[in-house]
Amino acid sequence: MYTSDFMKVLVADMCGFCHGVRNAISVAEKILAKENNVYSLGPIIHNKDMVERLAKSGLKTVGKVEEIRSGTVLIRSHGAAPEQIAKLKEKGLNIVDATCILVKRVQHIAGELEKDGYKVVIIGEENHPEVQAVVGCARDVVVIADESDLHKLPQNAKLGIVCQTTQSPEHFGRMLGAMGRCNFSELKVINTLCREAIKRQESAVQLCRQVDIMFVLGGLESANTRRLAELCKKVNQQTFHLQNWNELDKSVLSGKKTAGVTAGASTPDWIIDEFVSNLKVFDSGNS
Amino acid sequence: MYTSDFMKVLVADMCGFCHGVRNAISVAEKILAKENNVYSLGPIIHNKDMVERLAKSGLKTVGKVEEIRSGTVLIRSHGAAPEQIAKLKEKGLNIVDATCILVKRVQHIAGELEKDGYKVVIIGEENHPEVQAVVGCARDVVVIADESDLHKLPQNAKLGIVCQTTQSPEHFGRMLGAMGRCNFSELKVINTLCREAIKRQESAVQLCRQVDIMFVLGGLESANTRRLAELCKKVNQQTFHLQNWNELDKSVLSGKKTAGVTAGASTPDWIIDEFVSNLKVFDSGNS
Repeated sequence: MYTSDFMKVLVADMCGFCHGVRNAISVAEKILAKENNVYSLGPIIHNKDMVERLAKSGLKTVGKVEEIRSGTVLIRSHGAAPEQIAKLKEKGLNIVDATCILVKRVQHIAGELEKDGYKVVIIGEENHPEVQAVVGCARDVVVIADESDLHKLPQNAKLGIVCQTTQSPEHFGRMLGAMGRCNFSELKVINTLCREAIKRQESAVQLCRQVDIMFVLGGLESANTRRLAELCKKVNQQTFHLQNWNELDKSVLSGKKTAGVTAGASTPDWIIDEFVSNLKVFDSGNS
Repeated sequence: MYTSDFMKVLVADMCGFCHGVRNAISVAEKILAKENNVYSLGPIIHNKDMVERLAKSGLKTVGKVEEIRSGTVLIRSHGAAPEQIAKLKEKGLNIVDATCILVKRVQHIAGELEKDGYKVVIIGEENHPEVQAVVGCARDVVVIADESDLHKLPQNAKLGIVCQTTQSPEHFGRMLGAMGRCNFSELKVINTLCREAIKRQESAVQLCRQVDIMFVLGGLESANTRRLAELCKKVNQQTFHLQNWNELDKSVLSGKKTAGVTAGASTPDWIIDEFVSNLKVFDSGNS
Protein backbone atom coordinates (compact mmCIF):
# COMPACT_ATOMS: atom_id res chain seq x y z
CA MET A 1 0.00 0.00 0.00
CA TYR A 2 1.30 3.43 -0.90
CA THR A 3 0.84 6.13 1.75
CA SER A 4 1.52 9.79 1.09
CA ASP A 5 2.81 11.38 4.27
CA PHE A 6 4.52 14.70 3.70
CA MET A 7 6.72 16.07 6.45
CA LYS A 8 5.54 18.97 8.58
CA VAL A 9 8.53 21.32 8.76
CA LEU A 10 9.03 23.98 11.42
CA VAL A 11 11.85 26.52 11.14
CA ALA A 12 13.34 28.12 14.28
CA ASP A 13 12.19 31.69 14.94
CA MET A 14 15.77 32.87 14.91
CA CYS A 15 18.38 31.26 12.71
CA GLY A 16 20.79 31.93 9.86
CA PHE A 17 23.07 34.91 9.27
CA CYS A 18 23.77 37.08 12.29
CA HIS A 19 24.63 40.75 12.05
CA GLY A 20 28.39 40.16 12.09
CA VAL A 21 28.34 37.57 9.30
CA ARG A 22 25.87 39.57 7.19
CA ASN A 23 28.15 42.58 7.49
CA ALA A 24 31.30 40.62 6.54
CA ILE A 25 29.59 39.17 3.42
CA SER A 26 28.20 42.52 2.42
CA VAL A 27 31.60 44.20 2.82
CA ALA A 28 33.24 41.42 0.76
CA GLU A 29 30.67 41.74 -2.03
CA LYS A 30 31.12 45.51 -2.20
CA ILE A 31 34.92 45.26 -2.50
CA LEU A 32 34.74 42.41 -5.01
CA ALA A 33 32.48 44.56 -7.21
CA LYS A 34 35.22 47.20 -7.40
CA GLU A 35 38.54 45.38 -7.04
CA ASN A 36 40.30 42.30 -8.42
CA ASN A 37 42.97 41.58 -5.87
CA VAL A 38 40.96 40.80 -2.74
CA TYR A 39 42.06 38.41 0.00
CA SER A 40 40.45 36.96 3.10
CA LEU A 41 42.76 35.96 5.92
CA GLY A 42 41.23 32.55 6.64
CA PRO A 43 37.77 31.51 5.36
CA ILE A 44 35.53 34.59 5.57
CA ILE A 45 32.87 32.55 7.36
CA HIS A 46 32.68 28.90 8.42
CA ASN A 47 30.47 27.88 5.51
CA LYS A 48 32.05 26.18 2.53
CA ASP A 49 29.13 26.86 0.17
CA MET A 50 29.33 30.59 0.82
CA VAL A 51 33.13 30.57 0.65
CA GLU A 52 32.92 28.81 -2.76
CA ARG A 53 30.35 31.32 -4.00
CA LEU A 54 32.58 34.27 -3.01
CA ALA A 55 35.65 32.51 -4.47
CA LYS A 56 33.81 32.50 -7.82
CA SER A 57 33.36 36.27 -7.43
CA GLY A 58 37.14 36.52 -6.96
CA LEU A 59 37.76 36.34 -3.18
CA LYS A 60 41.08 34.62 -2.53
CA THR A 61 41.26 32.83 0.85
CA VAL A 62 44.76 32.51 2.33
CA GLY A 63 46.04 31.00 5.57
CA LYS A 64 48.93 33.35 6.26
CA VAL A 65 49.84 37.01 5.81
CA GLU A 66 52.96 35.85 3.92
CA GLU A 67 50.81 34.58 1.04
CA ILE A 68 49.59 38.10 0.22
CA ARG A 69 51.75 40.42 -1.89
CA SER A 70 49.44 43.29 -2.80
CA GLY A 71 45.80 44.34 -2.89
CA THR A 72 43.05 44.49 -0.29
CA VAL A 73 42.78 42.20 2.73
CA LEU A 74 39.50 41.54 4.42
CA ILE A 75 39.57 40.79 8.16
CA ARG A 76 36.77 38.29 8.66
CA SER A 77 34.10 38.53 11.38
CA HIS A 78 36.18 36.34 13.77
CA GLY A 79 38.85 39.06 13.74
CA ALA A 80 42.63 38.81 13.58
CA ALA A 81 45.37 39.18 16.17
CA PRO A 82 47.03 42.64 16.45
CA GLU A 83 50.32 41.02 15.34
CA GLN A 84 48.73 39.93 12.05
CA ILE A 85 47.20 43.35 11.47
CA ALA A 86 50.61 44.93 12.10
CA LYS A 87 52.21 42.61 9.54
CA LEU A 88 49.55 43.53 6.97
CA LYS A 89 50.18 47.22 7.62
CA GLU A 90 53.95 46.74 7.29
CA LYS A 91 53.35 45.24 3.86
CA GLY A 92 51.40 48.34 2.86
CA LEU A 93 48.25 46.33 2.14
CA ASN A 94 44.81 47.90 2.12
CA ILE A 95 42.98 46.53 5.16
CA VAL A 96 39.21 46.29 5.42
CA ASP A 97 38.14 45.23 8.88
CA ALA A 98 34.90 43.27 9.06
CA THR A 99 35.48 41.97 12.60
CA CYS A 100 32.16 41.52 14.40
CA ILE A 101 31.69 44.38 16.88
CA LEU A 102 31.11 41.89 19.70
CA VAL A 103 34.38 40.09 18.93
CA LYS A 104 36.13 43.46 18.74
CA ARG A 105 34.76 44.14 22.21
CA VAL A 106 36.24 40.88 23.58
CA GLN A 107 39.63 41.82 22.12
CA HIS A 108 39.43 45.28 23.67
CA ILE A 109 38.36 43.91 27.07
CA ALA A 110 41.23 41.38 27.07
CA GLY A 111 43.70 44.24 26.59
CA GLU A 112 42.06 46.35 29.30
CA LEU A 113 41.97 43.48 31.80
CA GLU A 114 45.66 42.93 31.27
CA LYS A 115 46.40 46.64 31.76
CA ASP A 116 44.45 46.46 35.04
CA GLY A 117 46.73 43.69 36.29
CA TYR A 118 44.53 40.67 35.62
CA LYS A 119 45.77 37.42 34.13
CA VAL A 120 43.52 37.11 31.07
CA VAL A 121 41.47 33.93 30.70
CA ILE A 122 39.17 33.12 27.80
CA ILE A 123 36.61 30.34 28.02
CA GLY A 124 36.45 28.85 24.54
CA GLU A 125 37.98 26.58 21.90
CA GLU A 126 41.74 27.00 21.63
CA ASN A 127 41.92 26.58 17.87
CA HIS A 128 38.94 28.72 16.94
CA PRO A 129 39.99 31.89 15.05
CA GLU A 130 37.99 34.16 17.35
CA VAL A 131 39.81 32.75 20.39
CA GLN A 132 43.16 32.87 18.59
CA ALA A 133 42.65 36.56 17.82
CA VAL A 134 41.79 37.32 21.47
CA VAL A 135 44.87 35.35 22.58
CA GLY A 136 46.89 37.76 20.48
CA CYS A 137 45.50 40.78 22.37
CA ALA A 138 47.28 40.11 25.69
CA ARG A 139 50.31 38.21 26.97
CA ASP A 140 50.00 34.54 27.92
CA VAL A 141 46.23 34.33 27.71
CA VAL A 142 44.94 31.13 29.33
CA VAL A 143 42.37 29.30 27.18
CA ILE A 144 39.93 27.14 29.12
CA ALA A 145 37.87 24.82 26.92
CA ASP A 146 36.59 22.64 29.77
CA GLU A 147 37.44 21.26 33.22
CA SER A 148 40.52 19.47 31.88
CA ASP A 149 42.20 22.86 31.29
CA LEU A 150 41.77 24.19 34.83
CA HIS A 151 45.30 23.09 35.76
CA LYS A 152 46.58 25.89 33.49
CA LEU A 153 45.28 28.56 35.89
CA PRO A 154 47.86 30.23 38.09
CA GLN A 155 47.27 29.85 41.83
CA ASN A 156 45.99 32.66 44.02
CA ALA A 157 45.80 35.05 41.07
CA LYS A 158 43.64 37.92 39.85
CA LEU A 159 41.91 36.41 36.83
CA GLY A 160 40.24 38.58 34.17
CA ILE A 161 37.76 36.31 32.40
CA VAL A 162 36.01 36.65 29.05
CA CYS A 163 34.16 34.10 26.94
CA GLN A 164 34.11 33.16 23.26
CA THR A 165 30.98 34.96 22.02
CA THR A 166 29.23 31.81 20.78
CA GLN A 167 29.51 29.67 23.92
CA SER A 168 26.31 28.88 25.85
CA PRO A 169 25.47 30.56 29.20
CA GLU A 170 25.31 27.02 30.61
CA HIS A 171 28.94 26.30 29.71
CA PHE A 172 30.09 29.79 30.76
CA GLY A 173 28.46 29.28 34.17
CA ARG A 174 29.86 25.78 34.57
CA MET A 175 33.40 27.00 33.92
CA LEU A 176 32.99 29.98 36.29
CA GLY A 177 31.78 27.57 38.97
CA ALA A 178 34.82 25.36 38.41
CA MET A 179 37.16 28.37 38.63
CA GLY A 180 35.35 29.56 41.76
CA ARG A 181 36.28 26.29 43.48
CA CYS A 182 39.97 26.88 42.66
CA ASN A 183 42.37 28.95 44.68
CA PHE A 184 41.96 32.47 43.30
CA SER A 185 42.32 35.92 44.78
CA GLU A 186 39.95 37.80 42.48
CA LEU A 187 37.83 37.10 39.42
CA LYS A 188 36.69 39.87 37.11
CA VAL A 189 34.29 38.34 34.63
CA ILE A 190 32.96 40.30 31.69
CA ASN A 191 29.96 38.73 29.99
CA THR A 192 31.02 38.65 26.34
CA LEU A 193 28.42 36.16 25.16
CA CYS A 194 26.52 37.16 22.02
CA ARG A 195 22.88 37.67 23.05
CA GLU A 196 21.79 36.95 19.52
CA ALA A 197 23.54 33.56 19.75
CA ILE A 198 21.84 32.85 23.08
CA LYS A 199 18.40 33.64 21.62
CA ARG A 200 19.14 31.31 18.72
CA GLN A 201 20.15 28.58 21.15
CA GLU A 202 16.94 29.04 23.14
CA SER A 203 14.84 29.13 19.99
CA ALA A 204 16.49 25.93 18.67
CA VAL A 205 16.10 24.04 21.95
CA GLN A 206 12.45 25.08 22.21
CA LEU A 207 11.78 23.89 18.66
CA CYS A 208 13.55 20.56 18.95
CA ARG A 209 11.32 19.58 21.88
CA GLN A 210 8.31 19.71 19.55
CA VAL A 211 9.56 17.66 16.60
CA ASP A 212 10.41 14.06 15.70
CA ILE A 213 13.67 15.03 14.06
CA MET A 214 15.85 18.14 14.20
CA PHE A 215 18.28 19.51 11.63
CA VAL A 216 20.99 22.00 12.44
CA LEU A 217 22.42 23.46 9.25
CA GLY A 218 25.88 24.97 9.08
CA GLY A 219 29.60 24.51 8.60
CA LEU A 220 31.23 21.68 10.50
CA GLU A 221 33.91 24.17 11.66
CA SER A 222 31.32 26.68 12.81
CA ALA A 223 31.47 26.98 16.61
CA ASN A 224 28.00 28.47 16.98
CA THR A 225 26.46 25.78 14.75
CA ARG A 226 28.16 23.02 16.71
CA ARG A 227 26.87 24.59 19.93
CA LEU A 228 23.30 24.60 18.54
CA ALA A 229 23.66 20.93 17.60
CA GLU A 230 25.08 19.99 21.02
CA LEU A 231 22.27 21.75 22.88
CA CYS A 232 19.57 20.21 20.66
CA LYS A 233 21.10 16.74 20.90
CA LYS A 234 20.76 16.88 24.69
CA VAL A 235 17.02 17.40 24.32
CA ASN A 236 16.31 15.46 21.12
CA GLN A 237 18.58 12.54 20.27
CA GLN A 238 17.32 12.69 16.67
CA THR A 239 19.39 15.82 15.96
CA PHE A 240 21.60 16.00 12.86
CA HIS A 241 24.25 18.61 12.03
CA LEU A 242 24.50 18.92 8.24
CA GLN A 243 25.99 21.42 5.83
CA ASN A 244 23.22 21.13 3.21
CA TRP A 245 20.45 18.97 1.72
CA ASN A 246 22.89 16.83 -0.25
CA GLU A 247 24.51 15.57 2.94
CA LEU A 248 21.24 14.21 4.30
CA ASP A 249 20.92 10.43 4.54
CA LYS A 250 17.22 10.28 3.62
CA SER A 251 16.68 7.04 5.55
CA VAL A 252 16.67 8.98 8.85
CA LEU A 253 13.37 10.56 7.76
CA SER A 254 11.58 7.24 7.74
CA GLY A 255 8.50 7.34 9.93
CA LYS A 256 9.09 10.94 11.02
CA LYS A 257 6.14 13.29 10.78
CA THR A 258 7.50 16.59 12.05
CA ALA A 259 10.93 18.09 11.47
CA GLY A 260 12.59 21.16 12.95
CA VAL A 261 15.21 23.21 11.17
CA THR A 262 17.65 25.71 12.56
CA ALA A 263 20.90 27.07 11.18
CA GLY A 264 24.12 28.58 12.41
CA ALA A 265 24.98 32.27 12.15
CA SER A 266 27.14 31.60 9.09
CA THR A 267 24.55 29.61 7.14
CA PRO A 268 23.16 31.53 4.15
CA ASP A 269 19.41 31.72 3.57
CA TRP A 270 19.59 29.83 0.29
CA ILE A 271 20.94 26.74 2.09
CA ILE A 272 18.09 26.90 4.63
CA ASP A 273 15.45 27.57 1.94
CA GLU A 274 16.66 24.72 -0.25
CA PHE A 275 16.70 22.33 2.70
CA VAL A 276 13.23 23.31 3.90
CA SER A 277 11.71 23.12 0.40
CA ASN A 278 13.13 19.67 -0.23
CA LEU A 279 12.07 18.43 3.18
CA LYS A 280 8.51 19.68 2.76
CA VAL A 281 7.96 17.70 -0.40
CA PHE A 282 9.80 14.64 0.79
CA ASP A 283 7.39 11.75 1.18
CA SER A 284 8.57 10.12 4.38
CA GLY A 285 5.86 7.44 4.22
CA ASN A 286 7.40 6.22 0.97
CA SER A 287 11.01 6.37 1.99
CA MET B 1 31.62 -12.19 78.12
CA TYR B 2 33.16 -8.87 78.98
CA THR B 3 35.43 -7.35 76.34
CA SER B 4 37.54 -4.30 76.95
CA ASP B 5 37.75 -2.33 73.74
CA PHE B 6 38.90 1.25 74.26
CA MET B 7 38.29 3.72 71.47
CA LYS B 8 41.18 4.91 69.31
CA VAL B 9 40.72 8.68 69.07
CA LEU B 10 42.24 10.87 66.36
CA VAL B 11 42.03 14.66 66.56
CA ALA B 12 42.09 16.79 63.40
CA ASP B 13 45.45 18.48 62.70
CA MET B 14 43.75 21.85 62.67
CA CYS B 15 40.76 22.59 64.86
CA GLY B 16 39.53 24.82 67.68
CA PHE B 17 40.04 28.55 68.20
CA CYS B 18 41.05 30.53 65.13
CA HIS B 19 43.05 33.74 65.31
CA GLY B 20 39.96 35.97 65.24
CA VAL B 21 38.20 34.17 68.07
CA ARG B 22 41.35 33.87 70.19
CA ASN B 23 41.86 37.61 69.81
CA ALA B 24 38.25 38.46 70.77
CA ILE B 25 38.43 36.29 73.91
CA SER B 26 41.80 37.71 74.88
CA VAL B 27 40.57 41.28 74.42
CA ALA B 28 37.46 40.50 76.49
CA GLU B 29 39.51 38.96 79.31
CA LYS B 30 41.85 41.95 79.43
CA ILE B 31 38.99 44.46 79.66
CA LEU B 32 37.12 42.37 82.24
CA ALA B 33 40.23 42.34 84.42
CA LYS B 34 40.15 46.15 84.56
CA GLU B 35 36.52 47.21 84.18
CA ASN B 36 33.13 46.29 85.60
CA ASN B 37 30.72 47.63 83.02
CA VAL B 38 31.58 45.58 79.93
CA TYR B 39 29.09 44.64 77.22
CA SER B 40 29.22 42.41 74.15
CA LEU B 41 26.86 43.29 71.32
CA GLY B 42 25.54 39.77 70.68
CA PRO B 43 27.25 36.61 72.03
CA ILE B 44 31.00 37.20 71.78
CA ILE B 45 31.44 33.83 70.05
CA HIS B 46 28.99 31.11 69.06
CA ASN B 47 29.85 28.90 72.00
CA LYS B 48 27.53 28.84 74.97
CA ASP B 49 30.09 27.31 77.35
CA MET B 50 32.58 30.08 76.64
CA VAL B 51 29.87 32.76 76.79
CA GLU B 52 28.79 31.42 80.21
CA ARG B 53 32.38 31.42 81.46
CA LEU B 54 32.88 35.06 80.39
CA ALA B 55 29.48 36.00 81.84
CA LYS B 56 30.77 34.76 85.21
CA SER B 57 33.75 37.11 84.77
CA GLY B 58 31.26 39.95 84.26
CA LEU B 59 30.68 40.21 80.49
CA LYS B 60 27.12 41.31 79.80
CA THR B 61 25.73 40.11 76.47
CA VAL B 62 23.02 42.31 74.96
CA GLY B 63 21.03 42.08 71.74
CA LYS B 64 20.64 45.78 70.99
CA VAL B 65 22.57 49.03 71.35
CA GLU B 66 19.55 50.44 73.22
CA GLU B 67 20.18 48.08 76.15
CA ILE B 68 23.53 49.72 76.93
CA ARG B 69 23.64 52.92 78.99
CA SER B 70 27.32 53.33 79.85
CA GLY B 71 30.64 51.53 79.95
CA THR B 72 32.70 49.64 77.40
CA VAL B 73 31.26 47.77 74.42
CA LEU B 74 33.12 44.95 72.78
CA ILE B 75 32.52 44.41 69.05
CA ARG B 76 32.74 40.65 68.60
CA SER B 77 34.80 38.89 65.91
CA HIS B 78 31.78 38.75 63.54
CA GLY B 79 31.81 42.55 63.48
CA ALA B 80 28.94 45.03 63.63
CA ALA B 81 27.24 47.19 61.01
CA PRO B 82 28.49 50.81 60.65
CA GLU B 83 25.04 51.99 61.75
CA GLN B 84 25.39 50.17 65.08
CA ILE B 85 28.91 51.53 65.61
CA ALA B 86 27.58 55.05 64.92
CA LYS B 87 24.83 54.56 67.52
CA LEU B 88 27.38 53.40 70.09
CA LYS B 89 29.53 56.46 69.37
CA GLU B 90 26.51 58.78 69.66
CA LYS B 91 25.89 57.36 73.13
CA GLY B 92 29.47 58.20 74.07
CA LEU B 93 30.29 54.59 74.89
CA ASN B 94 33.83 53.26 74.91
CA ILE B 95 34.16 50.93 71.91
CA VAL B 96 36.67 48.08 71.71
CA ASP B 97 36.66 46.53 68.26
CA ALA B 98 37.57 42.83 68.14
CA THR B 99 36.24 42.27 64.62
CA CYS B 100 38.26 39.55 62.86
CA ILE B 101 40.59 41.20 60.33
CA LEU B 102 39.23 38.98 57.56
CA VAL B 103 35.67 40.03 58.34
CA LYS B 104 36.80 43.65 58.43
CA ARG B 105 38.23 43.11 54.96
CA VAL B 106 34.88 41.80 53.65
CA GLN B 107 33.15 44.89 55.06
CA HIS B 108 35.73 47.18 53.45
CA ILE B 109 35.50 45.38 50.07
CA ALA B 110 31.69 45.61 50.10
CA GLY B 111 31.96 49.38 50.49
CA GLU B 112 34.62 49.66 47.76
CA LEU B 113 32.62 47.53 45.31
CA GLU B 114 29.62 49.75 45.83
CA LYS B 115 31.73 52.88 45.26
CA ASP B 116 32.95 51.33 41.99
CA GLY B 117 29.37 50.95 40.77
CA TYR B 118 28.79 47.28 41.53
CA LYS B 119 25.63 45.88 43.06
CA VAL B 120 27.02 44.14 46.15
CA VAL B 121 26.22 40.44 46.60
CA ILE B 122 27.28 38.29 49.55
CA ILE B 123 27.13 34.52 49.40
CA GLY B 124 26.21 33.44 52.90
CA GLU B 125 23.56 32.96 55.55
CA GLU B 126 21.19 35.92 55.78
CA ASN B 127 20.79 35.83 59.56
CA HIS B 128 24.42 35.24 60.48
CA PRO B 129 25.90 38.27 62.31
CA GLU B 130 28.94 38.44 59.97
CA VAL B 131 26.62 38.65 56.96
CA GLN B 132 24.34 41.13 58.71
CA ALA B 133 27.31 43.41 59.42
CA VAL B 134 28.44 43.27 55.76
CA VAL B 135 24.87 44.02 54.65
CA GLY B 136 25.15 47.21 56.69
CA CYS B 137 28.27 48.31 54.76
CA ALA B 138 26.52 49.03 51.44
CA ARG B 139 23.02 49.81 50.18
CA ASP B 140 20.64 46.98 49.30
CA VAL B 141 23.15 44.16 49.54
CA VAL B 142 21.79 40.95 47.99
CA VAL B 143 22.33 37.89 50.20
CA ILE B 144 22.51 34.58 48.33
CA ALA B 145 22.36 31.54 50.59
CA ASP B 146 21.69 29.03 47.80
CA GLU B 147 20.09 28.59 44.37
CA SER B 148 16.66 29.53 45.72
CA ASP B 149 17.88 33.12 46.23
CA LEU B 150 19.10 33.69 42.66
CA HIS B 151 15.81 35.37 41.72
CA LYS B 152 16.89 38.31 43.92
CA LEU B 153 19.70 39.24 41.50
CA PRO B 154 19.04 42.21 39.23
CA GLN B 155 19.16 41.43 35.50
CA ASN B 156 22.04 42.48 33.27
CA ALA B 157 23.87 44.09 36.18
CA LYS B 158 27.44 44.61 37.35
CA LEU B 159 27.62 42.38 40.44
CA GLY B 160 30.35 42.79 43.07
CA ILE B 161 30.51 39.46 44.89
CA VAL B 162 32.00 38.53 48.24
CA CYS B 163 31.53 35.47 50.42
CA GLN B 164 30.92 34.86 54.11
CA THR B 165 34.42 33.93 55.36
CA THR B 166 33.44 30.50 56.68
CA GLN B 167 31.71 29.11 53.57
CA SER B 168 33.41 26.26 51.69
CA PRO B 169 35.17 26.77 48.32
CA GLU B 170 32.77 24.14 46.95
CA HIS B 171 29.69 26.20 47.85
CA PHE B 172 31.34 29.46 46.73
CA GLY B 173 32.12 27.87 43.33
CA ARG B 174 28.64 26.39 42.99
CA MET B 175 27.02 29.77 43.60
CA LEU B 176 29.39 31.53 41.17
CA GLY B 177 28.52 28.93 38.56
CA ALA B 178 24.81 29.51 39.12
CA MET B 179 25.28 33.29 38.83
CA GLY B 180 27.38 32.80 35.68
CA ARG B 181 24.40 31.11 34.03
CA CYS B 182 22.22 34.14 34.81
CA ASN B 183 21.94 37.27 32.73
CA PHE B 184 24.74 39.51 34.04
CA SER B 185 26.92 42.15 32.49
CA GLU B 186 29.95 41.86 34.78
CA LEU B 187 30.97 39.93 37.87
CA LYS B 188 33.75 41.11 40.13
CA VAL B 189 34.39 38.39 42.67
CA ILE B 190 36.74 38.89 45.58
CA ASN B 191 37.76 35.71 47.33
CA THR B 192 36.97 36.48 50.96
CA LEU B 193 37.05 32.91 52.22
CA CYS B 194 39.13 32.35 55.35
CA ARG B 195 42.06 30.13 54.36
CA GLU B 196 42.35 28.91 57.90
CA ALA B 197 38.72 27.72 57.74
CA ILE B 198 39.39 25.96 54.42
CA LYS B 199 42.39 24.13 55.89
CA ARG B 200 40.25 23.05 58.84
CA GLN B 201 37.58 21.80 56.44
CA GLU B 202 40.17 19.81 54.49
CA SER B 203 41.74 18.45 57.65
CA ALA B 204 38.32 17.38 59.00
CA VAL B 205 37.25 15.70 55.76
CA GLN B 206 40.56 13.86 55.52
CA LEU B 207 40.21 12.61 59.09
CA CYS B 208 36.60 11.50 58.82
CA ARG B 209 37.48 9.18 55.93
CA GLN B 210 39.71 7.18 58.30
CA VAL B 211 37.38 6.68 61.25
CA ASP B 212 34.25 4.75 62.19
CA ILE B 213 32.61 7.78 63.79
CA MET B 214 33.28 11.50 63.58
CA PHE B 215 32.54 14.23 66.12
CA VAL B 216 32.37 17.91 65.25
CA LEU B 217 32.40 20.00 68.41
CA GLY B 218 31.03 23.51 68.51
CA GLY B 219 28.07 25.82 68.98
CA LEU B 220 24.90 24.94 67.10
CA GLU B 221 24.75 28.57 65.89
CA SER B 222 28.36 28.51 64.71
CA ALA B 223 28.46 28.75 60.90
CA ASN B 224 31.95 27.34 60.55
CA THR B 225 31.17 24.39 62.84
CA ARG B 226 27.99 23.61 60.90
CA ARG B 227 30.01 23.75 57.66
CA LEU B 228 32.54 21.26 59.09
CA ALA B 229 29.71 18.94 60.09
CA GLU B 230 28.02 19.22 56.67
CA LEU B 231 31.25 18.44 54.81
CA CYS B 232 32.09 15.49 57.08
CA LYS B 233 28.55 14.10 56.87
CA LYS B 234 28.88 13.90 53.07
CA VAL B 235 31.91 11.62 53.48
CA ASN B 236 31.05 9.81 56.70
CA GLN B 237 27.37 9.35 57.56
CA GLN B 238 28.38 8.64 61.19
CA THR B 239 29.13 12.33 61.84
CA PHE B 240 27.71 14.07 64.90
CA HIS B 241 27.67 17.79 65.66
CA LEU B 242 27.72 18.26 69.45
CA GLN B 243 28.43 21.11 71.82
CA ASN B 244 30.21 19.02 74.45
CA TRP B 245 30.64 15.57 76.00
CA ASN B 246 27.40 15.79 77.99
CA GLU B 247 25.36 15.99 74.79
CA LEU B 248 26.70 12.69 73.50
CA ASP B 249 24.26 9.80 73.31
CA LYS B 250 26.77 7.09 74.26
CA SER B 251 24.86 4.38 72.39
CA VAL B 252 26.23 5.70 69.08
CA LEU B 253 29.68 4.50 70.18
CA SER B 254 28.59 0.88 70.25
CA GLY B 255 30.84 -1.26 68.07
CA LYS B 256 32.97 1.70 66.92
CA LYS B 257 36.73 1.27 67.19
CA THR B 258 38.10 4.55 65.84
CA ALA B 259 36.71 8.03 66.37
CA GLY B 260 37.72 11.36 64.82
CA VAL B 261 37.31 14.69 66.56
CA THR B 262 37.35 18.16 65.11
CA ALA B 263 36.02 21.43 66.45
CA GLY B 264 34.82 24.77 65.14
CA ALA B 265 36.81 27.98 65.35
CA SER B 266 34.83 29.10 68.39
CA THR B 267 35.25 25.89 70.40
CA PRO B 268 37.60 26.31 73.37
CA ASP B 269 40.38 23.82 73.99
CA TRP B 270 38.94 22.66 77.30
CA ILE B 271 35.80 21.39 75.53
CA ILE B 272 37.91 19.45 73.04
CA ASP B 273 40.25 18.11 75.72
CA GLU B 274 37.39 16.99 77.94
CA PHE B 275 35.67 15.26 75.02
CA VAL B 276 38.80 13.48 73.84
CA SER B 277 39.77 12.34 77.37
CA ASN B 278 36.32 10.91 78.03
CA LEU B 279 36.19 9.24 74.63
CA LYS B 280 39.59 7.61 75.08
CA VAL B 281 38.58 5.87 78.30
CA PHE B 282 35.10 4.97 77.10
CA ASP B 283 34.74 1.24 76.79
CA SER B 284 32.75 0.86 73.58
CA GLY B 285 32.77 -2.94 73.83
CA ASN B 286 30.81 -2.66 77.06
CA SER B 287 28.32 -0.04 75.97
